[in-house]
Amino acid sequence: MTKSLRLHPDRLFSSEPRQRDVARALYATVKDLPIVSTHGHTDPRWFAYNEAFANPADLLIVPDHYAFRMLMSQGVKLDDLGVPTVDGSATEADPRLIWRRFADHYHLFRGTPTRMWMDWVFAEAFGIDVRLEPATADHYYDIIDAALKTDAFRPRALFERYNIEVIATTEGPLDPLDHHRAIRNSGWNGKVVTAYRPDPVLDPDDPRFIANVQRFCAMAGEDAGNYAGYLRAHEKRRADFREAGATSTDHGHPSAFTANLPRAEIEALYARVTSGPVTKAEAELFRGHMLTEMARMSIEDGMVMQLHPGVHRSHNAAVLARFGKDKGGDIPTSGEFVQSLKPLLDLYGNDPRLTLILFTLDEDVYSRELAPLAGHYPALKLGPPWWFHDSPEGMRRFRERTTETAGFYNTVGFNDDTRAFLSIPARHDVARRMDCNWLAQLVVEHRLEEDEAFEVAHELTYGLVKKAYKL
Amino acid sequence: MTKSLRLHPDRLFSSEPRQRDVARALYATVKDLPIVSTHGHTDPRWFAYNEAFANPADLLIVPDHYAFRMLMSQGVKLDDLGVPTVDGSATEADPRLIWRRFADHYHLFRGTPTRMWMDWVFAEAFGIDVRLEPATADHYYDIIDAALKTDAFRPRALFERYNIEVIATTEGPLDPLDHHRAIRNSGWNGKVVTAYRPDPVLDPDDPRFIANVQRFCAMAGEDAGNYAGYLRAHEKRRADFREAGATSTDHGHPSAFTANLPRAEIEALYARVTSGPVTKAEAELFRGHMLTEMARMSIEDGMVMQLHPGVHRSHNAAVLARFGKDKGGDIPTSGEFVQSLKPLLDLYGNDPRLTLILFTLDEDVYSRELAPLAGHYPALKLGPPWWFHDSPEGMRRFRERTTETAGFYNTVGFNDDTRAFLSIPARHDVARRMDCNWLAQLVVEHRLEEDEAFEVAHELTYGLVKKAYKL
Amino acid sequence: MTKSLRLHPDRLFSSEPRQRDVARALYATVKDLPIVSTHGHTDPRWFAYNEAFANPADLLIVPDHYAFRMLMSQGVKLDDLGVPTVDGSATEADPRLIWRRFADHYHLFRGTPTRMWMDWVFAEAFGIDVRLEPATADHYYDIIDAALKTDAFRPRALFERYNIEVIATTEGPLDPLDHHRAIRNSGWNGKVVTAYRPDPVLDPDDPRFIANVQRFCAMAGEDAGNYAGYLRAHEKRRADFREAGATSTDHGHPSAFTANLPRAEIEALYARVTSGPVTKAEAELFRGHMLTEMARMSIEDGMVMQLHPGVHRSHNAAVLARFGKDKGGDIPTSGEFVQSLKPLLDLYGNDPRLTLILFTLDEDVYSRELAPLAGHYPALKLGPPWWFHDSPEGMRRFRERTTETAGFYNTVGFNDDTRAFLSIPARHDVARRMDCNWLAQLVVEHRLEEDEAFEVAHELTYGLVKKAYKL
Repeated sequence: MTKSLRLHPDRLFSSEPRQRDVARALYATVKDLPIVSTHGHTDPRWFAYNEAFANPADLLIVPDHYAFRMLMSQGVKLDDLGVPTVDGSATEADPRLIWRRFADHYHLFRGTPTRMWMDWVFAEAFGIDVRLEPATADHYYDIIDAALKTDAFRPRALFERYNIEVIATTEGPLDPLDHHRAIRNSGWNGKVVTAYRPDPVLDPDDPRFIANVQRFCAMAGEDAGNYAGYLRAHEKRRADFREAGATSTDHGHPSAFTANLPRAEIEALYARVTSGPVTKAEAELFRGHMLTEMARMSIEDGMVMQLHPGVHRSHNAAVLARFGKDKGGDIPTSGEFVQSLKPLLDLYGNDPRLTLILFTLDEDVYSRELAPLAGHYPALKLGPPWWFHDSPEGMRRFRERTTETAGFYNTVGFNDDTRAFLSIPARHDVARRMDCNWLAQLVVEHRLEEDEAFEVAHELTYGLVKKAYKL
Repeated sequence: MTKSLRLHPDRLFSSEPRQRDVARALYATVKDLPIVSTHGHTDPRWFAYNEAFANPADLLIVPDHYAFRMLMSQGVKLDDLGVPTVDGSATEADPRLIWRRFADHYHLFRGTPTRMWMDWVFAEAFGIDVRLEPATADHYYDIIDAALKTDAFRPRALFERYNIEVIATTEGPLDPLDHHRAIRNSGWNGKVVTAYRPDPVLDPDDPRFIANVQRFCAMAGEDAGNYAGYLRAHEKRRADFREAGATSTDHGHPSAFTANLPRAEIEALYARVTSGPVTKAEAELFRGHMLTEMARMSIEDGMVMQLHPGVHRSHNAAVLARFGKDKGGDIPTSGEFVQSLKPLLDLYGNDPRLTLILFTLDEDVYSRELAPLAGHYPALKLGPPWWFHDSPEGMRRFRERTTETAGFYNTVGFNDDTRAFLSIPARHDVARRMDCNWLAQLVVEHRLEEDEAFEVAHELTYGLVKKAYKL
Repeated sequence: MTKSLRLHPDRLFSSEPRQRDVARALYATVKDLPIVSTHGHTDPRWFAYNEAFANPADLLIVPDHYAFRMLMSQGVKLDDLGVPTVDGSATEADPRLIWRRFADHYHLFRGTPTRMWMDWVFAEAFGIDVRLEPATADHYYDIIDAALKTDAFRPRALFERYNIEVIATTEGPLDPLDHHRAIRNSGWNGKVVTAYRPDPVLDPDDPRFIANVQRFCAMAGEDAGNYAGYLRAHEKRRADFREAGATSTDHGHPSAFTANLPRAEIEALYARVTSGPVTKAEAELFRGHMLTEMARMSIEDGMVMQLHPGVHRSHNAAVLARFGKDKGGDIPTSGEFVQSLKPLLDLYGNDPRLTLILFTLDEDVYSRELAPLAGHYPALKLGPPWWFHDSPEGMRRFRERTTETAGFYNTVGFNDDTRAFLSIPARHDVARRMDCNWLAQLVVEHRLEEDEAFEVAHELTYGLVKKAYKL
């Protein structure tokens, strides 16, 4: 006997009736607000060319490291899930078999946000009303596969159905931005913007760093042979990105370290990092100084900075060798912001023209460092709970630990941060529900007046993100 | 239409009816207990001379870094809030304008303890029944300003109205304690005591350290030229402070580091730190050794030690330069107590005559280090949640993370730690409510018997603080 | 008037009626499942010789560092509690006096798990129905003392009454395993197995390390003079332990540091550590490399590895000198797993034959490092909340912080980790109740379907531990 799949209208709300009632009332006023998706990793090609997605596995499993990391942790091989290899050697090619393997292990996701997002996609996007389990795997596959062949499931149709007001993709500094240009020239009026993520030309630890810098300067018509040219290349490429709608930059550094070197020193360091092997310390110093330069440019051109530090990328050597980056083996590390950000903040922390949005995977930092920093410096704002913490408990901890020191108005709404396009509404919905439930708790514990909670709910869902990202 | 201001009698209690009912019953037995305020920063001049407070802004905004740091984080300039400058250059002088700016941004405090404390002051101290917002700013100003001109709002009247059994101020080692003497000689019988905070003569990183030590030894009639004289100066000044009612010392160090140097080494180190520039390591070593000396003196003279480590003071260079210290730019850092305290504990940790009360801003340390240490060493006790964590969620985390390992009896009641005199009852009330709510949760989850919860509530409010601080 | 002692059937469940009802229903299905106690410190002699326990104090207080550490923290001397000394000098010998002192201070345990465990033992094991307090101390002593003289309170009878399916003790590498052999030869069919804890021959910081290694190799008939012989000794002793039922090894290291040295380097390091004084770094390197060797052997012989890192052992120098190790003075330290485990994981992290169960006392690591690692590597699993965190709040934090990233299926059930034999069912009961309450919360917040919660409750109680420990 198959089990029914039903999304409960009160999901994520407290079971305490008073709190639940307030949460329901708050949620009713924000659930239908448009989605403002300011940081994520959807593919601009989807919107540029509006082609149908290939099949259920290629859409929902193969690219989703949340999904395959869990199966891998329980002994399923990435090969058997069709994850593509670095050298192009074959992995499972039958999407139906991949789908069945996923269904066989769907119980592993109990209690995880992946389960919640997936169930939303199944129920809301595809209208499925039975639960995913081995017995229903083929039923699921058939329904989803058929739907994907219809126009209603092409990217632009979903974009419109999902009530997305704007979505930002993320592109590297070497991206020609052709797809974004194609979107603009297509006549379709969905708002898809880019964001400038210059890591490949900021990080001397990237094995292709030197080549990247050469190509980067060449794209901008600047001389890579000196620091001034390299800086101008950033300025020009930032202008290109702004032309493609970007209002933000994004920085994925190993730490939040910043530096402010005298001109002669950074010029000498630039010469070293662009000419040969560098020490760990030199690489860190270069990245740190460049964050400060990025802040300066942000003040000049108005782009909002996002800093996502503190991840040991590609921790699993064997997975990296066979499958490459972003395969579920990124592990957070301990964070530190107080010393790290001081050089940048000494220069620009009080400048009202700068917005630097901080993210962390080290939750201990929320109450100890981030809320006190954001509750003081005009330039700092707190990004939403990120990645592993983009989950009900993660969101609860974020509000519990930041609100009392930084308030609500130093936060910037929700980021879905995903390439799993179909689940974007599910992710925003989780955030809206958790925020409403938190506000409801404050109301029923008489820590916030009910009329104020309605105002704050709107701000957390829509107002703050528009303001912070200048959209 | 203005909105009403009403403090709900059940504020901070769970909305779950069983827990709320127990919390109410517990709270009813402690809410009217006298306030024992053993650590704070009120000004002894208030009680010595009993002058009226100047105006609403000077009383409630200009000196409150919780208040102006939040406004500053959202772009309001400290200049526009009348914060005085180091060089005496003018800032906003009109208290009504300052008050209006505060009212304009009062929504920023939603969900923060500042909002809760301020609303208590408005409603309970001044009897205001409409909410603070731009439209009511002048109404507020007029009411508060008028009240401050009455005798009922002079410091001693408030002290009595607030049912303060004893309040401790905090004075530096160079303080002549004249104001405390004036209180004693005034005939008024409010109990205002001092506490010995010798940081300025313990910390070689203080730019005035050498001059401070000279003056300090001179005050005590001792020779600053040798370590023995310096130690005797401490002993004499501690005696002066005890004469002014002090039962405690307080130590605000960058870390919890302690050391126990052989006599020859500390004498040599003393000679270095009092004669010229020192390294960071020397300064840390001197502070660390002196904490151990302070513990020894505490064993001899019975004064309770308080240690408040782990803050990066005056992080914002521009604010420090223009406005000086204590202007909302202090940021917590990561804490460590296990290695740091070992030298001191090796000597005195098992001595029943010592009470060393530990505070932290790194909440991860509660369950990992502080509760295990305090649940073992006879000399150690846990101070209440401090500063950024003096808030409902901060208090909740403190109890959740320390009770199971350290119990209730290794804690020492509540500290308001404030210079915001009018809000002292509000702060103690938040602690009483949160403790009662936590005890109520234990009762309704059958983790504590109800009759025991009543005993513990009294201890947390009144018994433990009196015992720990020997009052 | 004495107060009644009554264990409430709903203890530890939420007071919110919906959640409580689901928790009750879940708990009803797991409360009577057999106890699978895979990691602990009971004494195999109890089961081998089945002698009566001596008296209430010797059974319940003198060996329980949770109990006497709390009394000590409030000024009771370990001497007065009969804790035996290193040099054999006398301490309190009258068990009734010890018991009375414990009763005098029983209020100190309010809100702690010790109180919950003790009350369970009093009420369930001994049928006492009044609360322990000074007035009932003798009544308690008489009842317990009389019971201990009956056959029903001999170890094997309790083992059977407690429905223990299997219990693992922990033995060092020099243990001849005679008691386990005696159990086997006794004809009694209770399943008592050992576990291999080789710390004394892995840790060069142990003052007896060199002598230990000599004796260890001699026991195995191997040459301690070279690394190959030492490794073979491990392999042989592991085989001995497996013969005594062991399915697991256990490693109590100062940190989670691992290393993978080239053969020549480890041979040279082995020669150094077994011949004379070593530096801290050499000792750490040796321990780290040996963890990796233990992982290799686990892959070969199938034994599950447990890693318990991050404790500063015997922090209190005076207590260590007079009373020796394990006297309540062990204090957790900050944890790090991401860099530390990489050398081991690079070799064996993807090997499905390895199970490495990670424990921590630094709860910040749960969400930041451990859940992401265990939610990725096939070889890693998460051990239950450990030691100071084996408590209601500790268990709540564990589930809240690990479930969303690692799921339920990368955890391994509960460990009681105790030598307090009588409280074993109480400890498992707390875990079962807290897990059911957490699952109930997920159900009533519509984050997990009710039928799935029943499946997961069974897994958390029984299924996962059997699988992880291969029992």
